[in-house]
Amino acid sequence: MISIIAKCQVKPETVNELKKLALDLVAVSRKEEGNISYNFYAEISDSSRFTFIEEWKDQEAIDIHMKTAHFQDFGAKAGPLFAGPLDIALYNKLS
Amino acid sequence: MISIIAKCQVKPETVNELKKLALDLVAVSRKEEGNISYNFYAEISDSSRFTFIEEWKDQEAIDIHMKTAHFQDFGAKAGPLFAGPLDIALYNKLS
Repeated sequence: MISIIAKCQVKPETVNELKKLALDLVAVSRKEEGNISYNFYAEISDSSRFTFIEEWKDQEAIDIHMKTAHFQDFGAKAGPLFAGPLDIALYNKLS
Repeated sequence: MISIIAKCQVKPETVNELKKLALDLVAVSRKEEGNISYNFYAEISDSSRFTFIEEWKDQEAIDIHMKTAHFQDFGAKAGPLFAGPLDIALYNKLS
C-alpha cells in the first residue's frame, strides 16, 4: 500500500469550485480497482487550503490513476484555481 | 471529527530512535477515549521525513491528548531529534 498526502491552496474566490471538482474526483477515484481510500479535507485555520489523503494498492495503481480521464480532467479544471504548486508526498505506513 | 496531519523531519542519525518513539506514541494514543485513528508514515522520497495522520472525536479530545503523559513524554524525547519545526494542520473531512 502507498499513501499520498496532496496539499493545495486555491485563490479564495475559487474555493467552492475547487470543492465541487475535488469531491467529484474523490467519488470517481474511489471506484478505481487499485484505490483503497480517497478523502478530501478542508484546513480549519485557512479556508483556502485543502488536502487529499489517498491510499493505493501500489505504484501501478497510482500510475493508472494519473492517466485516467477523471484525474486529468480535474487537473485541467483545478489547475487555474491553485494559488501555487501542490505539496505532494508519498508514504509507507509504519503503524 | 477533526483530522490532524503532522509532518516532521529528523536528523538522519536519529531515524530509528524517532520511529520507536513514534510507534510507542501511536500504540498508546489509539487507546485514548477520544481517538478515532492514529497512524505513522515514512515519506518514500526522503528517509528523514515522517508524518502522523490522526483522527479525533473533537477539539476536547485533542486537548486531552496533548496533556497526556505519553504525548508530553514523546515531545520531550523526540524534540531534540527534529531537524526543524513540525508542520501541523487540523482539518475537517469533506468527503
